[in-house]
Parts: sequence; structure tokens; C-alpha cells
Amino acid sequence: MSLKNIFLTLLIGCFPFIMFSGNGYDLWLRYDKITDVHLKQSYLNNLSSVYKFGASPSLDVATKELVTGFHGFFEAQISKAAKIEKNAIVLGTKENLPQELLSILNSDFEKINEEGYILKKVTYQGKKITIITAKTDVGIVYGTFRLLKEIQLHHEISALDIQDSPKIQKRVLNHWDNLDRTVERGYAGFSIWDWHHLPDLIKTEYIDYARANASIGINGTVLTNVNANALVLTEQYITKVKALADVFRPFGIQVYLTARFSAPMEIGGLKTADPLAPEVRAWWSKKTNEIYAEIPDFGGFVVKANSEGQPGPRNYDRSHVDGANMLADALAPHKGIVMWRAFVYSEENPDDRAKQAYSEFVPVDGDFRENVLLQVKNGAIDFQPREPFHPLFGAMPDTNIMMEFQITQEYLGFSSHLVFLPKMWEEVLNEDTFTHGENATVAKVIDGSLSNRKLTGMAGVANIGTEKNWTGHPFGQANWYGFGRLAWDPYLDSKTITKDWLQMTFTNDDGFVTPMAELMIDSREAVVNYMTPLGLHHIMDAGHHYGPGPWIKDMPRADWTSVYYHKADSLGIGFDRTVSGSDALSQYALQIQKKYDSPETIPQKYLLWFHHLPWNYKMENGQNLWINLASKYQEGVEEVEKMNTTWSKMKPFVDNERFNKVASLLKIQLKEAKWWRDACLLYFQQFSKMELPQFIPTPEHNLEYYQSLKSPYAPGIKPSWN
Amino acid sequence: MSLKNIFLTLLIGCFPFIMFSGNGYDLWLRYDKITDVHLKQSYLNNLSSVYKFGASPSLDVATKELVTGFHGFFEAQISKAAKIEKNAIVLGTKENLPQELLSILNSDFEKINEEGYILKKVTYQGKKITIITAKTDVGIVYGTFRLLKEIQLHHEISALDIQDSPKIQKRVLNHWDNLDRTVERGYAGFSIWDWHHLPDLIKTEYIDYARANASIGINGTVLTNVNANALVLTEQYITKVKALADVFRPFGIQVYLTARFSAPMEIGGLKTADPLAPEVRAWWSKKTNEIYAEIPDFGGFVVKANSEGQPGPRNYDRSHVDGANMLADALAPHKGIVMWRAFVYSEENPDDRAKQAYSEFVPVDGDFRENVLLQVKNGAIDFQPREPFHPLFGAMPDTNIMMEFQITQEYLGFSSHLVFLPKMWEEVLNEDTFTHGENATVAKVIDGSLSNRKLTGMAGVANIGTEKNWTGHPFGQANWYGFGRLAWDPYLDSKTITKDWLQMTFTNDDGFVTPMAELMIDSREAVVNYMTPLGLHHIMDAGHHYGPGPWIKDMPRADWTSVYYHKADSLGIGFDRTVSGSDALSQYALQIQKKYDSPETIPQKYLLWFHHLPWNYKMENGQNLWINLASKYQEGVEEVEKMNTTWSKMKPFVDNERFNKVASLLKIQLKEAKWWRDACLLYFQQFSKMELPQFIPTPEHNLEYYQSLKSPYAPGIKPSWN
Repeated sequence: MSLKNIFLTLLIGCFPFIMFSGNGYDLWLRYDKITDVHLKQSYLNNLSSVYKFGASPSLDVATKELVTGFHGFFEAQISKAAKIEKNAIVLGTKENLPQELLSILNSDFEKINEEGYILKKVTYQGKKITIITAKTDVGIVYGTFRLLKEIQLHHEISALDIQDSPKIQKRVLNHWDNLDRTVERGYAGFSIWDWHHLPDLIKTEYIDYARANASIGINGTVLTNVNANALVLTEQYITKVKALADVFRPFGIQVYLTARFSAPMEIGGLKTADPLAPEVRAWWSKKTNEIYAEIPDFGGFVVKANSEGQPGPRNYDRSHVDGANMLADALAPHKGIVMWRAFVYSEENPDDRAKQAYSEFVPVDGDFRENVLLQVKNGAIDFQPREPFHPLFGAMPDTNIMMEFQITQEYLGFSSHLVFLPKMWEEVLNEDTFTHGENATVAKVIDGSLSNRKLTGMAGVANIGTEKNWTGHPFGQANWYGFGRLAWDPYLDSKTITKDWLQMTFTNDDGFVTPMAELMIDSREAVVNYMTPLGLHHIMDAGHHYGPGPWIKDMPRADWTSVYYHKADSLGIGFDRTVSGSDALSQYALQIQKKYDSPETIPQKYLLWFHHLPWNYKMENGQNLWINLASKYQEGVEEVEKMNTTWSKMKPFVDNERFNKVASLLKIQLKEAKWWRDACLLYFQQFSKMELPQFIPTPEHNLEYYQSLKSPYAPGIKPSWN
Repeated sequence: MSLKNIFLTLLIGCFPFIMFSGNGYDLWLRYDKITDVHLKQSYLNNLSSVYKFGASPSLDVATKELVTGFHGFFEAQISKAAKIEKNAIVLGTKENLPQELLSILNSDFEKINEEGYILKKVTYQGKKITIITAKTDVGIVYGTFRLLKEIQLHHEISALDIQDSPKIQKRVLNHWDNLDRTVERGYAGFSIWDWHHLPDLIKTEYIDYARANASIGINGTVLTNVNANALVLTEQYITKVKALADVFRPFGIQVYLTARFSAPMEIGGLKTADPLAPEVRAWWSKKTNEIYAEIPDFGGFVVKANSEGQPGPRNYDRSHVDGANMLADALAPHKGIVMWRAFVYSEENPDDRAKQAYSEFVPVDGDFRENVLLQVKNGAIDFQPREPFHPLFGAMPDTNIMMEFQITQEYLGFSSHLVFLPKMWEEVLNEDTFTHGENATVAKVIDGSLSNRKLTGMAGVANIGTEKNWTGHPFGQANWYGFGRLAWDPYLDSKTITKDWLQMTFTNDDGFVTPMAELMIDSREAVVNYMTPLGLHHIMDAGHHYGPGPWIKDMPRADWTSVYYHKADSLGIGFDRTVSGSDALSQYALQIQKKYDSPETIPQKYLLWFHHLPWNYKMENGQNLWINLASKYQEGVEEVEKMNTTWSKMKPFVDNERFNKVASLLKIQLKEAKWWRDACLLYFQQFSKMELPQFIPTPEHNLEYYQSLKSPYAPGIKPSWN
């Protein structure tokens, strides 16, 4: 075989590796080979070697990532040089840079915060170099991932001049993972935390999880379920948690745990967990010290208290402030924080569930310690396909308020439906709370700028599990990715996120990126339409929340039923939350009240959230409510049909494994969209007593059939709950 | 860049792909690149293209596998030719071969059975070709994997002349997988069956699972737990099972389900499950017909009845024969079979548990239908590190007896310990039952040759889960592999299995294979020694069976405790199963009774299984029992220390990911081996009242400490059992 023939064989040989790596494990960090010869050369001209000022584990992971990226892009090694070469990549924190470089970068450093980075082409000692610098180690890691991203996006890198900083401080994933490895509301297999083998076995997955998070700026992970297990606070488990913390530290990721409020009794042998009892306060203080002895940068506690059966200060006639501040005091000496969830609703309180958190917390604004964040879900009910923003945003100017988004799709089709959630989160972040006049958006509450808060945060309930591709649905990865991007910058538009993610995860080919970005953006409205259009909400089947269940009633609590939320009857449909109803609307600013108070002026998307209206209510388009409702359901189904068609044309751009998987899942999504449409319309028709419009295809089954469907082993609920 | 430079860059670029693919997902089907130029050329000289006589899904999967293999070995494409070329690989079943080839292969076909294959270099139409042929489609698949294996082992292929056939008919994996995806006694994550997304989503894992099984001759899979759930027999699930059956069919793999005996009541609405009740018989017949309408090659049912709380015919005062035959009659018209488990022990019967299955089944020898296999565990207790063979083997000449091995390491260190199980299985298969004189081995019972049985089988309880590498421990793969090899040929020696597996899974380098084969072979005796030496058994911690628990007593049943089995007291230790004790020994042949009856003549490895002996009993080596016991525990620990040392030298041969994982797991194994030694010796010392021998290092903790250890979330048990 001639040299040329061997060369060709190798070329052929190498190529399929790219098309073969379709299991999705690499996420958006694929570092696909740069095949364009000119582009490749232009990059290689700018990336001769790596040089480091100083040394640290974070610098090591940054360097390793550059090696990995270089190998992927160019199938070659990048050398680690002993001195700065022409076109070198130079890494180092501010304190380790020589004076000459510092003076060049002086104004750049002014533009970044403690976690920000500078990525810049500069001339140093007569040589052009690419400098990645920051005030802290983790900034170097972020800057490194930014450089790699620029290459992934095929951007020009010969004149880089980037200064970027996160706008929110605590950017954390919440894992609702149990110690037995089940995951509450997990649809991507089971927990990636293999507690049984910790601390001795450090799985590659832990490192790759940290890489993925660091690449999008996530700097915290809550390892355990908010429905907490006190055992994780025992010595046996703290050792395991420490092992994970050690892995994550160089990537700038802190670990947090959920604190079960009754832990002092369950594992501490105390007779009470009263937050004002001295022995309880002493126990938490000692426990916290124990944790910090092992994990000096431990993040703190997340607490779900007095909510859905969890213990809390209310068990002792103490307030949420008493509970949160007690833990905050234990953590304060170590600079730890408490994330106290605002998702509370009383077992006795018959008031509209949408109102209760506001009623509970607004009166205590200003009473929480400085190291407490009140963690508020985006809406007042529970992670629905669409909710108005939570009225607590903007209503507690003297409290640190953080956002809780749900990345796992509990109410949005599990891991079978392609729904791009950043589009939804963007909608919430852009909403105006009118707290201090106009343009007081939720984003400004969250980043602290509106009320000059010092401690800020955003949490996302993770959609990560043991599936080979982490998230089950290949497009579930985009929601993890997008959460990180929005936690870094809550003003980012979701379209940018789609494009970046698509290019990094699939291909830079515009024939793929443009239609798929549109598909992703449209996917959110699709799911709203085929599940809960016009402001409907919480009409999923009970418990597991899989599939439609508008007929659900007779649960242990009225507000766990569907009929509580849609209130369909012969007179109409919808939840009257105006003054004639629950008056939840009064929790919003006057500007909003005024607009939402009338069904004529309220945005149609919130219509039935706030109003109970007759079936023949005439809407803007001249058609009645029933026709409009049916029309929205049909639109949703048709959008999913369109998604199927679009994807079918993407085969040339995608490896077989991911192409087939998405194609199968889109078929499931279409089947379930039709199921939703047919089941809901047949159910509501009982009340509307009107014909299905002609544009609705005849349902495949009757209402009894849909009501008879049972899914006892739908994922995401504890096996023992079945 | 010169051509040569690009070439070198590519070479460097390609190489790491091999070292990178260390997650173990590929199992023993890695098809690693052949780097030896001469060897490569010799193969390429024999493999010009692929030609097929006839067409079938099995031929398609065989061809696809050849393409995959060729790509891996040579980083090149093998062409599918329209006519037979020189040095072609030619595939086709007997019925599709032309007369000229048939006449060449006449005597070869006489050597194989229905599932066997011929892999032979022949001259056809003046051209040398490699023919892969068989009497049935699946034989082609087996022959194809054999050819690929020959290349993986770097064997010469220019004069192939292989005829091979399986010696056992039903070679099945038993998945103890629940519908909620938990796996009973599963230590490799959760179930790979994603029931929620079936039938619409066919995961790549299902195909790769089928490839792996077909490559070692496994031809059946029982999808569900023997502790069965009747729901899997409903229409909703049959559709899902059908989807899997469709995937597995081209690979020659039949699906089986576990039949919950009370299903006619639970999902059929009947008032009884009495196997003699006409409505029950009619229900099962109808249900079976329903299944076969969807899955024409459905394998049949596995049943665990009247065992550990499962319902069965005894609930209606009917016999196991009544139960098994009732299902057999329902399956017979479709050529389906029943695998009826012999693992039964009464809740009331106070007799030695080791005796009960024999007592129950021997009297009904000859009463089962021809399509019933009685599935017998290798030993009479429960998958211990070492057990004497089950006395049922050889005792029921007029019954189809199949073997049940446990691949998942319930009592052998879970997925953390490297234990090569084929070494243990070989020991059992080679045992002489003396049924018709000497050399009546268990293997001859199992392959039917001893009593001329027509239906034969071997089951292995799978160790497969959602772990990226399928089995958790990289060496757990060897047990899956070895099970398949022994099911194909129960006379195979385990050393051959280690070498084949090591070469296919890691490297052909002798510097790796020789020491590692030895390590694997020795690993089985190591675990016996550090857990249950000298015939001890079932002294693991209760429920989850993780770690030592010789102190376990006061369980709902005496035979779930440890003290029941070791009977340690001030007088001595061991279970007297001679005539002065439970007389379980009388269930074996006279030749065995004679030898085992005396502690002087019984093999030392079974000493305490059959005898209760004083602590100061003097053994062959002149030392007393206590010293010997301690010595064995110490030997076990030292063997694991040696395993650690051996592995530490293997770094040059193994990719980082697998090297590090095995290294970490061996450290866990050493830690746990010491835990076993120290906990057991401290516990037994209470009774022996003798000093620990000097060769035992001072235990790190006292007995109270070991007894205080709790593992509420040890894997492998249902979360709800915690």
C-alpha cells in the first residue's frame, strides 16, 4: 500500500468516528473536527501551545480541556510549553500575571467581577498571544470554555476581545435525587450519584458532569431531594459528599445538601426540632461545623419546610423566618447560605393555592438573615407549561429572592417531548413586575439590581439521570444548557441559546441550524396549546402527571385535583382570580391588575388563569371560547406534526443514533399531543354541550377510554408510591 | 504541511480514539484496530467482500456486524458484492446454497445441529472463499461472530475449518427486572428496559444487548422478575414486549415472561387461580394465544411459585406438577415452554432448607409435561460463594432439569468485587452425581446426555443494568460472557474463557493476558476465603446481603438468619448435615455420602457445610479448626492484596478510564475483604474463646462497631423495602 493509499484509508477510517459518536454523552462539548481546511489553518495559526502563569487544580482542568478540544478539532496534540511562544494560549489569574500583562489588561479587569474572565488577543514581549485571565481560578475555567466555544461556533479568534461576568451569583442545579438512587420527577433514568460506591469510586461521569456545568457557568449543585432524608447529614454520607465536592472544586462548583428540618430528632437523638430551642440550634451548629471540616467550601442548605408533608418550623408554632435564620446562623461563620423554598401551601388553608406563598412571606419581608435566599418558583402553582410570574417577585424588596425553574419536564411531557424551556423562562424573566414603575422585570429582581440585593441566585431542578445521553431526550440537553446560560445572564434571548446549542451539539450547517432553531423556539407554545391553552393549568393525570387528567377529582387535597383548577361547568370554564373570585390578582401591581382584570384586555394566554368565562364568550377573533379552545388544541397538534416534518429533513446532518431517537420521540410526542387534545376536548364537551368544530379530526376513542388509561409505572415517582 | 506530516498528524489523531473508548460499553465486541502490518495484510488477503445467498433479517445483522468489525479492525469499509469474488466471505443457510457448495460441505453439515454453524475456507468456482453456513438463520449469526472472534484473537484465518453447535438448547438470561425499572439484586444501576417509552422508542442499547448475547450464543431472555407482576401480561405491556421481541428476533433471541400464578385473579377478574379450575385453564390458554398472536416465537413462561411469598398451586392444595402442567398445556400448541423453578421452601416446614426442594420434587419425577423444564439453582441454599451441587441434579432422570446460575453477585460482593464466576460454575458442572456409576457429571445432567432428555436449558440471572458499561464492574462483563460460553458448552474450561474474554475486551498482549487470566481464576477462591471459608455459608448481612452479618438472628424465618447456617457455639461451628444432624447428605449418591460422612475424608471446602466440629478439631495440616478458619480468612485478604498489585502493573495495557475504575474497585474489594475477615473472626472468637493467631493483623475496630454498621440504601433491594 502506498503512503497515499494508507493516508486515504486513514481518512476514511477517521471520518466515521464522528458519525458514530451519536450516543449524546458528550453533550455540547463535542469539539467536532474542523473539516474546512482554511478555517482549521486560521485556528492553528492562533493556537501554538499552552502556557500557564501559576498553578492550581483549576488551571489543570482548563489545560486538560484545551487538550481535549484541540484533539477533537484538529486530531492533534497541543503542546504545553515551558515558555511563552508566539500565538500561545496563556492562562493565569490576575495575581500571577507579570506587570507588563497587567498594565495591558488594566481596563479589562475593571469590566469583570470575581467570577468573570478576560479572553483577549494581546501582544506580550513582542509576541501575539491569547490570554485567558480572571480574578479567580474559576474565571480561567470559564474563559477556557469560552475560547473552545468560539471555535465550536467557527468564530474568528484572531482578534478576541471578550470580557464577561455572570450576573447572578448562585447558579445551581437542584437534584431531586434520593439516596436509593430513585429521582423524584426524574425521567432520564436514575440518579447519577452512586452513593453505594462513594467515596472510593469516582466515576468518569462525575468529572464530565462538572465539565458540562462549568462550561455554562453553573457553580453549585444540590445533591439531594428537597423531600429530604436526614441520613445524608450523617458521617457516613458526609464522607461521600466530600468525595464529590473534591471532584467538583476545580470546576468552581460548590456542593449543597437539603436539610431535613427534623434531622436533629432523626439522627441527632433530640426530642425536638424547634428552631428556637438551644439544643437544636447547638446541634445544627455542630453538624454544620462537621460538614465544613470535611468540605471547607460547602455551599449550604436547601430547605423545603412545612410543604407537602415535610417537617418545618410550623410544627413548633415558629415561623419560616425562625427556621431559615436558625440554619443561616449555623452557616454564617463558614460563609454558607440557606436557600429556603417559598413553595408552601397549608394543609388547612382553603384559600386559592396561588395566593398562599405571597400571603405567608410578604409580611416578613426584611426579616431573613443576609445569607438567606428565598427560593421562589417561576409561577405560583407548580411548573406548568405556562404560568403568570409569581407575585412574590418584586413584592419583597428587602429579601434576597432567587428563581427556581424546573428543567425536568414534570408537567411538560417528561423526557419524551421536545420542549425548549428557555423560551418559557425568558418569558417569565422579561415580565414587568412594575415594582418601582415600569421595566421592573423579574430578571432585575433576580439579579438584585432592582432593590440592590447583595446575594442573588437561580436554581434549576435537574433533568439529569443515568441515561447514556444524560437527559433521555437529546433535546433535553438544550434545557440544561439553556438554564446555565440564563443563570449567567438572565437577559439573554432564547434564540441565541438555541443557535449556540445546536451548533455545538450537532453541526454549524445553516441548513440544520435555522430550521431547528425555529422548531425549538416554537416548541414551547406547541406544548402549551396541546396541553393547557388559554391559561388552563394543572389538568394532568394525578400523581405522576403523565398525560391528560382533566377529570381528576377526589384527591386528599382539593388543590391536587384538576377540577379545582379548570372549574369547568355548564356555565363555563376557568379560575376566577379577580376580586369576584379568589382575588389572587390583587397580589400583583396595580398596572397588572388593571390590565388583567378584564377578559377583554388580559393577554389571551392568561385568560382562564384569571377568569371563569362562558363557553360562548366571544373572543377577539370573533369566535366563541369553545371554538378558540378547540382551535388552540388543534394548533398544538399541528405544530408537532410540523416538528416531525422538519426533523425528517434533518437526516443528512445528524448521526443515525440521534436522528432515529429524536424521530421516535417526536412520534411519541405527536401521539400524546393528540391524546391530550382528544381527551381534553371530549371531557370539556360534556360541559360546553357544543359540537367539536369541523377542523378537529374525529377522536380515535371515546371519553371513557381516555379516562380508563392507567400508568402505574410512569417514571418520576417513587416506586413505593405505586 | 507536507503529506507526510498530515499523515503523522492523522496517525496521532486516530490513535487516541482507541485509548479513549474506555467506558466499556462495547463489551467484548471492541474489534480493536489491528496494528501489526503483516497480520493486517494476512486478514485483508482473506476478506475481500461479502456475498449473501438468500435474504433474511438475520443475514442482514450478520452482514452489518461484519461491516462493523471490518471498520474496527482495519478502519475501512468491506464491500457488499453482487457476485462472489476471490476471498469473499459468503453467507447463506443450507437451503439457499448452490449444489456445488452443498456437496463440498456435506460431511460438515452432519457435524452440526439446528443451531450450529460451519465456518470454512473452501474453493468454489475456482475461487477461495470463506463460507459461513448453517441449517438455520441464527447459525449464520453465530458463525459470523465466530469469524470476528478469530480475528479478535489474532488467529490465522486462511484455513478455517470449524463446525460448532451448542450443547444446550435454552440458553437464557433471567432479568429480575421490575416494571418500575428497579432490579432485584441488581448492582449495575437500573433496568435497561425502558417500559415507559416502549413500544415506540427502540433504544440502541436493545440492539447492542442482542448483539452481545448472540455473540456468545444466548438465545433467550426472560424480561421480568421471577417475583412477578401480572401487569406484564396485559395488552398494554404485551405490545411493549412485542417491540423488544422484534428487535431480538434476527439475533435468534426469544423473549420469555415471568407468569404470576395469581394473574387470572389480578388482571383476569377470576375468583380463583386454581390450576385445575376450568376457567383458570381457559384464561391461561386465551392469554397465551393473545401473546402468540403478537409474538409468534414467544419462548414461554418462567414461574416462581409458592416460594418466598409468591402465589402458586399450593394455595389451592394442588401440586407443583398441576401448576406447571397447566401452563405447559396452554403453551404446547405454540411450542412454548415452562421453566418452573425448584427454589421452593415451605413457610411451615422446619426441615433443613437444603433438603426441601429434593423432598418436594423427587417424588414427582416423570410427572411433568415434555415442555416443562425444572429450573434448579446450582446449590440447595442460594447462590453462595461455594455450595455443593444441588442434590436434585441426577435425582430426577425422567424430568427435564435445567441449571440456574446467578451472574449478578448477590452474595459475592455486588458489582464492587472482581470475582470470576465461571470458575465456580465449572466446579459445579464437573461434579460427579454418580447417578449411573462414575462420571455422571452435572454437565451431563444439564445437556440431557445422562438420561437422554430432549429439552435442555441453562439460565443465568443477569448482572446487566443502566451502567455505561452494562455491569458496573468492568470484570462483571466476564461473568456475562462466561455464562454464555458455558451455556453453549458446559464442558468448556474456565481458563479458556478468561483468555478469550481478556483478549477480546482488553488486548492480545501476553504481558496482560497471562497474569490477568491467573488473577481471574484465583479470584473465586479468594472470595470464598474472605467471606465463607471451609463450607460456611449465608452469613451475609440480612436483606440486602451486603457485608458480613454472622450475628444475624431473629428474622421472620429461622432460615433467613446467619446463626441458622453457621451454628457457632461454645462447642464448635458448622451445620451437621450427616445422619446425626439434618441428614441432608442422604440426598446424594452413596459414593458421595461415604466420602462426605466423615470430617476426615470430606473435601475441606465442604467441611462446615456438612459437619459441626469443635473449635480445637485438628485438621489435616495439624492445626486446629480455629487456626485454619483464621488462616483462610487471611489468605482471602492476601489474595486481594495480590490482585491489587497485579492490576497496578497493567496500566500500560489499559485505557485510563477502565484502569482507574478497576483500581478503585479493587481497593474497595480489599477494604471489604478485611471487613469480612475482622468482623467474622471477632464474632466467632466469642465462641472459640481462643486468641486471634499472630498472622492476623489487629482488627481496626471492635465487634460492636462492625455490628453497628448499617446500609439502608445498599443496592439491589426494592426501595420500598428499606
